[in-house]
Order: sequence, then structure tokens, then C-alpha cells
Amino acid sequence: MAGNTLGTFFSVTTFGESHGPGIGCVIDGCPPGMHLTEFDIQKALDRRRPGTSRHVTQRQELDLVEILSGVFEGVTTGTPIALLIRNTDQRSKDYGNIIDSFRPGHADYTYWQKYGIRDYRGGGRSSARLTAPVVAAGAIACKWLFEKLGIEIRGHMSQLGDIKIPFIDWSHVSENPFYAANAEVVPKLEAYMDLLRREGDSVGARLRVVATGVPVGLGEPLFDKLDADIAHAMMGLNAVKGVEIGAGFQSIAQKGSVHGDELTPEGFIGNYAGGVLGGISSGQDIDVSVAIKPTSSIRKPRRSIDKYGEPALVETFGRHDPCVGIRATPILESLLALVLMDHALRQRAQCGDVSVPTPRIAPRVPE
Amino acid sequence: MAGNTLGTFFSVTTFGESHGPGIGCVIDGCPPGMHLTEFDIQKALDRRRPGTSRHVTQRQELDLVEILSGVFEGVTTGTPIALLIRNTDQRSKDYGNIIDSFRPGHADYTYWQKYGIRDYRGGGRSSARLTAPVVAAGAIACKWLFEKLGIEIRGHMSQLGDIKIPFIDWSHVSENPFYAANAEVVPKLEAYMDLLRREGDSVGARLRVVATGVPVGLGEPLFDKLDADIAHAMMGLNAVKGVEIGAGFQSIAQKGSVHGDELTPEGFIGNYAGGVLGGISSGQDIDVSVAIKPTSSIRKPRRSIDKYGEPALVETFGRHDPCVGIRATPILESLLALVLMDHALRQRAQCGDVSVPTPRIAPRVPE
Amino acid sequence: MAGNTLGTFFSVTTFGESHGPGIGCVIDGCPPGMHLTEFDIQKALDRRRPGTSRHVTQRQELDLVEILSGVFEGVTTGTPIALLIRNTDQRSKDYGNIIDSFRPGHADYTYWQKYGIRDYRGGGRSSARLTAPVVAAGAIACKWLFEKLGIEIRGHMSQLGDIKIPFIDWSHVSENPFYAANAEVVPKLEAYMDLLRREGDSVGARLRVVATGVPVGLGEPLFDKLDADIAHAMMGLNAVKGVEIGAGFQSIAQKGSVHGDELTPEGFIGNYAGGVLGGISSGQDIDVSVAIKPTSSIRKPRRSIDKYGEPALVETFGRHDPCVGIRATPILESLLALVLMDHALRQRAQCGDVSVPTPRIAPRVPE
Amino acid sequence: MAGNTLGTFFSVTTFGESHGPGIGCVIDGCPPGMHLTEFDIQKALDRRRPGTSRHVTQRQELDLVEILSGVFEGVTTGTPIALLIRNTDQRSKDYGNIIDSFRPGHADYTYWQKYGIRDYRGGGRSSARLTAPVVAAGAIACKWLFEKLGIEIRGHMSQLGDIKIPFIDWSHVSENPFYAANAEVVPKLEAYMDLLRREGDSVGARLRVVATGVPVGLGEPLFDKLDADIAHAMMGLNAVKGVEIGAGFQSIAQKGSVHGDELTPEGFIGNYAGGVLGGISSGQDIDVSVAIKPTSSIRKPRRSIDKYGEPALVETFGRHDPCVGIRATPILESLLALVLMDHALRQRAQCGDVSVPTPRIAPRVPE
Repeated sequence: MAGNTLGTFFSVTTFGESHGPGIGCVIDGCPPGMHLTEFDIQKALDRRRPGTSRHVTQRQELDLVEILSGVFEGVTTGTPIALLIRNTDQRSKDYGNIIDSFRPGHADYTYWQKYGIRDYRGGGRSSARLTAPVVAAGAIACKWLFEKLGIEIRGHMSQLGDIKIPFIDWSHVSENPFYAANAEVVPKLEAYMDLLRREGDSVGARLRVVATGVPVGLGEPLFDKLDADIAHAMMGLNAVKGVEIGAGFQSIAQKGSVHGDELTPEGFIGNYAGGVLGGISSGQDIDVSVAIKPTSSIRKPRRSIDKYGEPALVETFGRHDPCVGIRATPILESLLALVLMDHALRQRAQCGDVSVPTPRIAPRVPE
Repeated sequence: MAGNTLGTFFSVTTFGESHGPGIGCVIDGCPPGMHLTEFDIQKALDRRRPGTSRHVTQRQELDLVEILSGVFEGVTTGTPIALLIRNTDQRSKDYGNIIDSFRPGHADYTYWQKYGIRDYRGGGRSSARLTAPVVAAGAIACKWLFEKLGIEIRGHMSQLGDIKIPFIDWSHVSENPFYAANAEVVPKLEAYMDLLRREGDSVGARLRVVATGVPVGLGEPLFDKLDADIAHAMMGLNAVKGVEIGAGFQSIAQKGSVHGDELTPEGFIGNYAGGVLGGISSGQDIDVSVAIKPTSSIRKPRRSIDKYGEPALVETFGRHDPCVGIRATPILESLLALVLMDHALRQRAQCGDVSVPTPRIAPRVPE
Repeated sequence: MAGNTLGTFFSVTTFGESHGPGIGCVIDGCPPGMHLTEFDIQKALDRRRPGTSRHVTQRQELDLVEILSGVFEGVTTGTPIALLIRNTDQRSKDYGNIIDSFRPGHADYTYWQKYGIRDYRGGGRSSARLTAPVVAAGAIACKWLFEKLGIEIRGHMSQLGDIKIPFIDWSHVSENPFYAANAEVVPKLEAYMDLLRREGDSVGARLRVVATGVPVGLGEPLFDKLDADIAHAMMGLNAVKGVEIGAGFQSIAQKGSVHGDELTPEGFIGNYAGGVLGGISSGQDIDVSVAIKPTSSIRKPRRSIDKYGEPALVETFGRHDPCVGIRATPILESLLALVLMDHALRQRAQCGDVSVPTPRIAPRVPE
Repeated sequence: MAGNTLGTFFSVTTFGESHGPGIGCVIDGCPPGMHLTEFDIQKALDRRRPGTSRHVTQRQELDLVEILSGVFEGVTTGTPIALLIRNTDQRSKDYGNIIDSFRPGHADYTYWQKYGIRDYRGGGRSSARLTAPVVAAGAIACKWLFEKLGIEIRGHMSQLGDIKIPFIDWSHVSENPFYAANAEVVPKLEAYMDLLRREGDSVGARLRVVATGVPVGLGEPLFDKLDADIAHAMMGLNAVKGVEIGAGFQSIAQKGSVHGDELTPEGFIGNYAGGVLGGISSGQDIDVSVAIKPTSSIRKPRRSIDKYGEPALVETFGRHDPCVGIRATPILESLLALVLMDHALRQRAQCGDVSVPTPRIAPRVPE
């Protein structure tokens, strides 16, 4: 009820606050029989981890994950997989000045109004730190999707502030801290980030995630359309303000004769649909983009109020990213994996099979 | 499981196909004691109904709704409200030519792949006709939200193809078939639509929905954020390819010093957040925009395949809208109402109260 | 939320009141590709129908079911199956004397307290009439379970009041109105019922349902154990006051050396477990018994209060069964079918297969 | 999906295996603002803990609980409460002899068939040890129910094997290891247990739990009836084979004129209904009894098979209770608390208020 679970068939229930004893999640519904070790998950966490370049928050957390349950002798058992990450670098004093006042753009005000109480340390439950359990769970989903269905999920940054980053090649992504699929633009991005840091300001970003190898047939037709569930997962990530599938907002000005991807016996011509037709995967790449707002915590002083309703000035002195979008790519990949995993199991329940090796069309060639 | 239910606390389960005996829904969780008649629902359905202007499909359905349960002597009883709309204008013959082939941009191909069977008549379950039960349920949610909490939900078209429609005033919306909040631009829109119809082509649209009077505190912080659930509902509507909250994709190029709405004792300055902070309503207007793709059914012939994998040409001769976005405004309003209703009841469950008359801030003035 | 849905994977959402326009349900999650006609469902409804012997209520409802959706050309499509049964024999006047007062043993008092409003006609939503949609949905589940997995579900009455009805043979069940698996005891039961009717009193019953052919592996181990979900479904039936699996309450006085069913290579020796171990089906018969309380509506006058808190005498003049248990067998069979169906699809989701033809043990014989 | 969550509004998701790193749960939906410390939970765990008398398993676990999240400065925040209990006394070697064979009466066989893999150490996930997180969560529910609504939940053993234990007074319960509400019978129970231990056998028990102070109106009328959800929770407890509400199986032989509790302006006369009418609480005591089967692990050798399908003899040498029912009382209390908590929040969602101080009847006295 309280919104801490993502997914129904492969469900991830997260817990924890930025500066409490620990964070983690319980993953329910993981099929039995998959090899899984802490290392499989740690690899993914290390990719998300802050402090890995000068462009992201310098908070140093080792984020060591412990598997508490659900794995026996290195194999999943079908029982819940609980993951625990202890909080170690908890400088609560950094947040002393916002105990009573609300940081603009943050959830401080709304948490306090909703609950009448809030854990102000590092944003408490609303901290970006809570994406770590999502990435951990996503690593498990990614592994299953790849091993069982051959699905691969990758993301990259396609715009930083007003700098567009044309896609060149996936191989570039791991070579720079921005997840840019374009090595050439990296110096420009670095210069821009350095400028922002000096100004004490921040900026937004556009990120794109793509899943290849998705079988046709995933997604429920009416409300839990595959794209609807993707939008739910993506928009649920801190700082995301918009989600697009395929042509997205470009489709407004497109003609139907352009937008509607034609089919030939060899497959679709174009993918303006983004891999989803009527809410169901079409076998093409799932192609999603999101808009990430500029980091709300900036050094520039900002007007706000305190919990007594009095005016207050809020400045941020702690460790923060000038662009939260920079670290978001692995998280979006994880979210997409979680949604696909959920729908793969769902499809298996209702239709009995998920991995249609060749589309249903093949065997029905007329005599 | 099969995705035909929207909402958990105020849930709407729809059923029906375009050309079956009837369509409808079961609404579960409606609070008891609200006055409700078929007329309350019929009004909303009539607004959505096709055939009301020359710019939309000429299919003539009276869409008469019958309340089958849940209302006794004109008052909701707390038991499920079932609504039935009989299909009356079912020209199945219009669809004879697509029994075996898949219309580009439609769900024909994916339904067939997913289920191995599809009701091809009028798109079957994937028909836009299935938005009628959503509008019917939305009318009930709207009534409750307005009567209990004073929430008002309105939408308008803000772009048709490449024609932007600047917002002038809400009063214009009901005066034209486009839901344009701008009477001046209407002749231009009409000329454009007539051109499209002659060309046998279609175009997309941008629509915006706004909820005013929303109390602070609605939305769950982690996965079922208010904006996440809105994105889920909106992206779940046929033809929607993108969803934005507040500044949406504009926030990519915004600086943090611009985007983050400052607070003063008098309230927020600006609403780039779109009424949601950390997934929880802030008390400001909820402001959502969606991108609607061009109608997939166009008169121009398009390449496709049939279910034997052979090439096929698909032309549409039936009654279709050159821009499905034109009729979508009441549906988006309904979807927003359903999400808010769900979260209002959810908030009541966990926090005991939903209509915080003045924010929690007021009574805590220091001595 | 409001409790009108049974099941998650194969879910049945019912609607309707005893004397409203109609009753019915929406079934979501039915696998596509199964042959289904109204006749398949009608057969089951006719078995449950009142008025078929002098021992049950003489209310005459034809209970004609209409399939509103989800079936195309006689085959399920994977979309929701909506079923509608119009109420035809609505003698509302029979209930005029209980508009303001609460019938002892009925839900009148609690509905009124919970909702502040109640449809008093025939018990409204709490009427036993609402078991018709359950039986209709159960017919679909039974058909799938039998065709796909070979599961067969049967029930019988094993006690009426203090008359025990020893099981002789399933073939007897359809030959008498009591669902007694014992023709010899029928005259005694009839005499007892006639006596009760003359006295204006009622009595309880014990019923048993058995599912054979259930594959091993259905049921979730911790909270949604197969037996837990069966207990939930059974106890949710009007008038049920107790549920037993296998040895049930007899197991209290059993020794562990007696109760625990031993295994041999040929199978289990005994079935005190009732077909469930650790919440998961063992491949043995699922064996469930329920206690049904005596009909609350009796001719004898009873003390009660009215809604003003004043004393009131309540007598029942309408058409009622002296033992509601007599008509309950088909409903219990349906409920068991719905639970098994739900778990069959659930098992398919997580473990990829449900119909283990031979237990996993077979292929693992050592070299 | 995989059945590790109990409740929807106040949900408890447990994780862990008997001999893994730890066990615990995530509680979602706890209202904010309640004082809560680890001590509140530890008290309840200590009551359930094994090793506290010679009549229960001598496994020594301190069962120290750690609150990982959801509590800030001693107060619940409305975010998920994660609880962790490390496993400390893990003598895996005790279970070496059952790695390949299945203990009769246990879940060994069904887990292995369902998942194709099982953690054999101490029963893995099917261990009674997994009731500790249930008790921990129940302690939180109990606290809220008592503080907000004045609800009190107590249980006692009413039968051990064939020894009936007449209820004398609640005060006796805490004075003996059997939770007998009758001090006189205790020596007889002790002698019986000693005999069983010598015989290497076990026996079943009947337990009863009662909730007082429950407001009228909790429970959903159709499928999620309060008694249905209680039956689901209770039957989901290891070893429970039967559940009764109120008169339970006695109601079979009762006449309607006896069973149906009459009402007077002063309240109900009798409580054969067990506090539930039509699935909704009536304001009377909720009165539930369960049948617990004899412990399956006994010293006497038993026939079984191994995973290769070959015959095997199984003897138990480890630490086990001769009657698992002895330690079950606190668990049943916890389960009842969890169900009531869930329905209290549910009622608040739909009907806006849960604690009806005086029934709705009072203010409606006629002028």
C-alpha cells in the first residue's frame, strides 16, 4: 500500500534511509535454479556507486551487499532474496542546518506534510541512495533475462543541459563518466560540469535506455501495458520529469504515414513505436528516454520556509552531484530490467510460455 | 494479473471489446454515501462520445450507461459499482479486410503473437472504444474528489501537429471541438484537419491536464509516487507516447537555480515541479502533458504482412479520427481523477486523513 | 481493496445485489485458446440454482448467464471474461419488514454499521445469490483444470445436523438433492428436513470437497500456502464457520507417528495431510471439509433491535432454505477450482511449468 | 506472487531460512507517529523463543532483533520498517542425514518437487523459525491496535492431545509453559509431555485466540471477509490443519434458533458467530480456534523415500518440540493482530474512520 514495492510477479520491496543502519530490499518471485553470488550484484552496485569520478558526489560508500536469504549453495531457491547494504559513511552533521527548514526542489516539505515527521538526514527515505537496492535487484533481473531470453539492456546519456550527445557507439559508454555513447563530446561535457561546479549550480539531462532481444508478447493490453509500466518505473525515479517511448514527443508533429512503422516479411521498417504496440512488445528494441531535472541541492542560496512557516534561506554545503543524471544510467537500466522481468513471468503465467524463439508467424505458412 | 484493473484502493476493472455484446467496468472501493445517478456518468460519456463533430470518427454510438450495482436509492453503498454500455453500432463488415493482416501502428500484430488469437473487429479489446468505461469511472472519481476535497480537473489541447495552441483561458475549451483553450486558433486547426482528411493522413497532438485544489500529501514516496502513477495511467492510454510532469523535458536544459521552485510563507514561487515533490503532492496544481501519436488508421495504403508472413497492403476505409488526440482530453482528465482518487483513499488508510484543510505548517507557529 | 476480488492470477471480481438489476463477474487472467460457450457455464449454474427441490428456497430464478466479453468465435482470447446474470424474480416486498431492523445471524447489522447505508432487499450484497457468479467463474476454472491438467473436483455432504452421512460412492451424489454420497441415508435426511420446516427452524451441515489429479508443486510456501488460500476462499463463503484440511481437528488428538503420512516408492501411505505439505500440493487428493452454520432466516420469531436502537422482533416469511448447506456443494467445488486455477498459473509464472507429468523424482534415478 | 507477503494495507514480507545468515521482514504501511523501539519487539520475540522450557526445542537462539529502517528518533516515520534477526545457533550437521531424503509430514518433498532445489538445513524456509518475523511484525500491529483502538489480543491452549483444558482465567496463561488458562491441569500436561518425549512421539493441540475491543465494521463483505482473512493467516501457519470462528464445527449440529445470536438494546446475547457477521466485525469478541497437527519430526523411525525414488528410513535426532502447538500461541496472537491491523487501515481508506467509539446506532435514536 505504502508504495515501497515495484512489480507483482518479480517484486522488489526496498527499505532504508540514507543515514539509518542500512538499506536493502526483498526480491520475491525469482525463479529457482539460477546461479547467483554476491559478486554478480556487487558488480552492478559498483557501477552505480558515487565517488567514482569528480563529476559526482564524493560521498564514499563501499556499498557492500550481503545476500541474507534465497540463495543456497550459489543457486536461487525460489524463496525471497533479501539484500542488505550497511550505511557506513553517515555524516549526519552535514544536514544539521536543514532540520527545521525545507530544501527547495526536495521532498522535505511534502514528507513533513504527509507524515508529520521526517528523517531529515540526507533526505532520509527520499535520498538517491535508495536507488542502490534497485540496482541490486536489477542485476538479478538482468542476469535472468539475459540467460533465459537473451535480452540485453543498455543506456546512455543523450543530452546534458543543452548539449546534445549524438549516439556513435555503445562501446564508448563505459569509457567516460557520463555514459556518453560518444567519446568526442566528453571534453565539452567535462568543461561544462566544471563550470557548473564553480557556479554552484546544476543542470538536467536526457537519458536513453534500450533493451534488445525482447520477445514479442510481453505487456498486458489495457492498463499494465509494457510502456505504461516502464513509464511508472522510470517516473518513479527521483528527479525524472518526463518519459518517452520511441518517437515520444516528436510524434506530436509526425504524420501517421510517417510514424506508423510498416511491416515486411523481414520485419518492421523503423521503430518510432519504440518496441511496443498496443502495450505489448513487438520484438523490436524497447527504446525509452527520460528527462532528469537539475539537481535540487545547489550551493547558491535559495528562499524557503521552515516548519514554523517562517522564511528561511537554504544553502547546500554537503557532497552533491551537479547533475544527478550522470549517475542515473545504471539505475534506468535496472528499472527497465525489473519491468521486463515482471512481464516475462506474467506472460508465462497467462500464456504458458515467454520465449517465443521465432514469432508465431513462422509455423503458420500456408500449405 | 492480466492488466485490466487500474488502481488498488479505488480500482476500475474494465471488460469488453469494440464489437462484442457490450463494454463496461466494475469499480471497487468507492466510499459509501455519495449521491450517484446514471446521469452523472452519462454526462461525462457524452463528452467523450464520437460523432459529435466532423473532426472525429463518425461512428454513432449512444453509449448509454446502465448502473448494475453498488447504488441503492441514488446513493453509493460501498459495494462494487458495475457499469454496462451495450455496443449498438457494430459494423463488423468494415473490418473484413484485416482479418488476416496486421494494421501498421496497431496492436493487431502483438495481440496475435501474444495470444495466438485476436478479435479483429474494430481492434477488439485494443479499440479506443474501451476508453468509455474509463471515462465512466472517472466521472465517479471526479464527483467524489470535487465534493469531498474540492479538487477540479481540466484538460486542453496545447498542440496539434506542429501548430502550438497557447493557453488563453479555460472558458474557451468547451466552445470548440478541439478542447483548445484558445478560440483564436480554432479556424487554423479546422483548416488543418480538413487538409489531413483530404490527404487521408493523420497527425499527433499534445494535451495537458491540470488538477487544482489537490491537498498536500498524496502519493507514496518510493515506487508509487503520484507522478509515477500518473505516468502509468497516461502512458497506458492508447496512442500516448510520452508523459511530462511540470517542466518535463524542458527541465533537461534548465539550471537548478531556475528549476527548483522556491518557497515563501505565501506559498511556492513557480511550479516547474508540476505539483509533485519526491512523488508527493505539494498542494500546487498537478500539471501533466502527454504526447499522442498520429492515428494509425489512415486512408493511405501501407505495407504490412498477413498472419502467414506474406506481404499485404493495408488501407483503412472505416470511420476513424484524423487525430485521436482530439477526443482524448476527457479521457486524460478521467485518468488523472482515477489516480488522485486512488491516492486520496490510500493516504486516508495510512495517515488517517486526507483533506488537510490548511497545511500542517500552520498550527506549529512558535510561541 | 474492498474485497470483491478472489484470486490474483485468475481473478474473479463479482458485482451485484440480490434485488438490483443484475449480478455477475469479471474474470481476468483466463488463458487464451480454450473453447468456451455460455452452455458450459449455464450447466454449472443450473446445478446451483434454487427451486430445484422442496428442500431449498423456492425462489425461482432462471439465472441465465450472458458472456459479455473475452470470448471470440467460441474461444477465450486472454482478455477479461465478463458474465452477466439479470435478476428477474425480485419480490422486494418480502423484505419490507426488515427495512429498519436487523435479522439475527445476518449481515444486516454489520453492513449498516460499516457503511451507514444498506440495501436491505434480500440481504443486498450479502445474499447467497452472490454465489452464482462464483459458480459461473468456477465452471471456467474447472474446465481449464480438467482439460489441461486432468484435475477433477467433487464434493458431497458428510453431515446434516447431527446425522452423519458415511461416504459410499461418488455416483450417489447426483442422485439426491442433498449431495449425499450415500443413497441409503437420503430418506432419513428428507424426514429430518420436513420436520425442520414444520418447526420453522434450521440446521447446519458438514461438506467435503476433494480434488483429484492435482500436480505436485502448487501453493506458495509461506503465506499463500495452498491450504491457506483454500481456507480463505471457503471461510469467505456465507455461513461457513470452520475449515479443515485432511485430518483437520482430528489431528489434535493424533500422535505424530500416526498423523505423518509415510512415503514409499509407490506413493504416500495415507492422506491425513489432505494433499498439502508445507503449503504445497503433494500430488495426493486435496481434501477439505467445512462447517456450515444453520440458516439464519427462520420462521421462529427472534429478538433483535432496529436502527434506532429499539427492541424488535424478527420473523422470516420469505423463501429460505432450512439448511443452506444443501445447496453449497457446487459452490465449494467452484471455490476450490478457483484457488487451484490461481495457483496453477502462479506456479507457471515462477517455475515455468505446472503440469509435472511424473514427479521430479523419476528422472533422477542414480546410474 | 511467491507468497511471502501477508496483508495489503499493513503488509509484512518475510525473508530468510532456518540456517542462512538471517531472517527478518519488511513491514510496509505502518502509520507514522507511533513510538517504537527494539525493546517493544524484543519482548514479543522472547515470548516465542524456543528453549524457554523443557517442553520445547532446546535450540538456543537469542533472536535479537535490529530495526534497520522506518523509525527515526524512536518514532515510526511511515516508511518501511525492516527488521533483521541474525541466525546464530546453526547446527547444520544435525540435518546431514536428510540431505537426500524427505521427512514425512514435512515440506521437504513438496519443496523439492516445486523448485527442484531445497535448502535442507533445518527445513530451510519451511522452518518454524520463520514465525519469528511474524511475531516481530505482530508486536508492532498489537501496539498500534491497542493504542489507537483499545484492541487486546490474547490466546491460550484449549486442548493438548486428548486432554481438554477448560478455560478458567486469562491470568493463568503466563504462569505455565503451555499457555493454559487453567493452572490445575498443568501437572497433567507436563506428565503427558514427558511420556511423549520418552516415547519419541508427538501430539497435536487446539489453540484459541480472542480479540476484545474490536470496533464494529472491520472486514470486507465478499471475499476478504474478516473471518476469511483470519482463516487464511491461521491456516498459513505451519502445522495448522483447521480453523474455526465462533461455534465453528459445533454449528453443524446446532439449530438456527440456537446458533443465531439475538440482539437487544444492550448488545448481543451470546457469541456463536465469533464476532463476525457477513464477514464484518460485529463489535463482539473475535473468537478463533485452530487445530495444530502433531510435530512431524519424531524420534521414531519412519518410512520415506530419497530423491532418487529409493526407500529410506528417517529418524530425527535434532532438537524438536514434542508438540509444536505449545509455542504457537504468541504466533496466533500475532497473526490475528496482523489481520485486524490490515482491516483497520482498509476500513479507514474506504469509510474514512475506523474507531467508531459507539456504534452508529446511538445517534439515531428517534426524537
